[in-house]
Amino acid sequence: MSKVYVWVNDSLIPSDKANLNIADLAVQRGYGIFDFFKTIDTKPIFLEDHLDRLFRSAVLMRLELKQNRDEIRNKILQLNKNNNFRDSGIKVILTGGFSPDGFTISEPNLIISQQEFQIPKTMPEKGISILTHEYQRQFSDAKTLDYLQAIWLQPILKEKMAGDVLYYSNGIIRECPRANIFVVTKDKKVLTPETGMLKGVSRKHVLEISAGMFNTEARDVSIEELRNAAEVFITSTTKNILPVVEVDGYVIGDGNPGKVSRALAEEYNRIIYGS
Amino acid sequence: MSKVYVWVNDSLIPSDKANLNIADLAVQRGYGIFDFFKTIDTKPIFLEDHLDRLFRSAVLMRLELKQNRDEIRNKILQLNKNNNFRDSGIKVILTGGFSPDGFTISEPNLIISQQEFQIPKTMPEKGISILTHEYQRQFSDAKTLDYLQAIWLQPILKEKMAGDVLYYSNGIIRECPRANIFVVTKDKKVLTPETGMLKGVSRKHVLEISAGMFNTEARDVSIEELRNAAEVFITSTTKNILPVVEVDGYVIGDGNPGKVSRALAEEYNRIIYGS
Repeated sequence: MSKVYVWVNDSLIPSDKANLNIADLAVQRGYGIFDFFKTIDTKPIFLEDHLDRLFRSAVLMRLELKQNRDEIRNKILQLNKNNNFRDSGIKVILTGGFSPDGFTISEPNLIISQQEFQIPKTMPEKGISILTHEYQRQFSDAKTLDYLQAIWLQPILKEKMAGDVLYYSNGIIRECPRANIFVVTKDKKVLTPETGMLKGVSRKHVLEISAGMFNTEARDVSIEELRNAAEVFITSTTKNILPVVEVDGYVIGDGNPGKVSRALAEEYNRIIYGS
Repeated sequence: MSKVYVWVNDSLIPSDKANLNIADLAVQRGYGIFDFFKTIDTKPIFLEDHLDRLFRSAVLMRLELKQNRDEIRNKILQLNKNNNFRDSGIKVILTGGFSPDGFTISEPNLIISQQEFQIPKTMPEKGISILTHEYQRQFSDAKTLDYLQAIWLQPILKEKMAGDVLYYSNGIIRECPRANIFVVTKDKKVLTPETGMLKGVSRKHVLEISAGMFNTEARDVSIEELRNAAEVFITSTTKNILPVVEVDGYVIGDGNPGKVSRALAEEYNRIIYGS
């Protein structure tokens, strides 16, 4: 197997040598942000949207990048060229940096890594079941490194054979740890949460498509509306549009992926994979 | 300057070479726990209490240590001997490990680092002012790496010239990011929160001392009770007993450290520094 390369600040190095001193604020205090996107046929998908969000997360979390947008984009493109993967995920992490007192934000360390992966190019025939969990992510507008809750919940999801977990707070559904959620009502309205969650790039593009095809609203959605939905699906970089057919044991619709989900997935996949 | 040594798993190495591969779940997802204690005159203070809590945090966060308590204690003592600091802080971090999928907990990486420091051996003559901030720490019984909120608030504290921030939730005071809080009522009752916060080792010992000297209760304490207090102080490994004389601009008591705080600090400092 050939080596996989990683950027650690200005060094392009093999992943097994991609180290960070333990003084970094990510290791010491879990402080940092990141973004993640995929390449299809070697092309980064929605790269500018992800760069937008990377910089937004950095500002929200008070991280001052020394690199500008062009420099980061160039590093991404060079990494992608070096690794030469067809289909992959690229992750850009900005940490709190080497803090002299272990508490004050310093110059961020930049890590850009890449992993080969395959995602089905069409929507799966079968939907997943999910669990709900009461939780409100802190700094929910920023894509922070904080996945304590999500990682801690993993064994419970496995035990209950759930494909994902949906956070809710104050009776309002928010997001899955790594995906956004959409609800299709019985009168074919497409709804997706708008507050207390991270605004995904996949969500953004699905919303745009949906607005041209269906009555679409981004607004607070209650657990009640979720349970009474005709269709439910989640969106993310690795999942594209993935139908949800069961929530906490409640069967959604007739238990199969619905027509609205399928219509949106076809259009979405056409955009990212080409026709 | 001589080199400071650090344990990274089973390697005792100079701190500038103490690296962790970026695949670790602390760097990728902020996942990990830690504990922190001090040495005075080369002797670790309340080491067994801190080992108790380290293992408790690990269990709560599903981290399975391969080292047993004796092995970790031995590593701490060897590090302390090697670095040969008189007064210092020792930090033991357990990360989520090298996760193959970037999401599943793996074998924890163990980092033990040490830093020389000096703490005043008597309670300061002047108290600090603090701000309150509505926030409930997730997994509050565990000492996790999650300090997003605390680090993010630092510039605001500086701007408002506050010495610390106190989290509260549902009208109940909880904890400072790195300290516990005590309230002395006007009828000389000593109160400290008991839920939704980390149970500090300093807190434990101050509680024990206080129970022998004053009417003492560990129970929910409201913001109202805090503002009406005769005295307020915080406790931590680096602060011992530190008086608080102002909360959100409200002056506590007569604005000076009180007699109960002083009596407790004298007894506490006698125990840790000797008479």
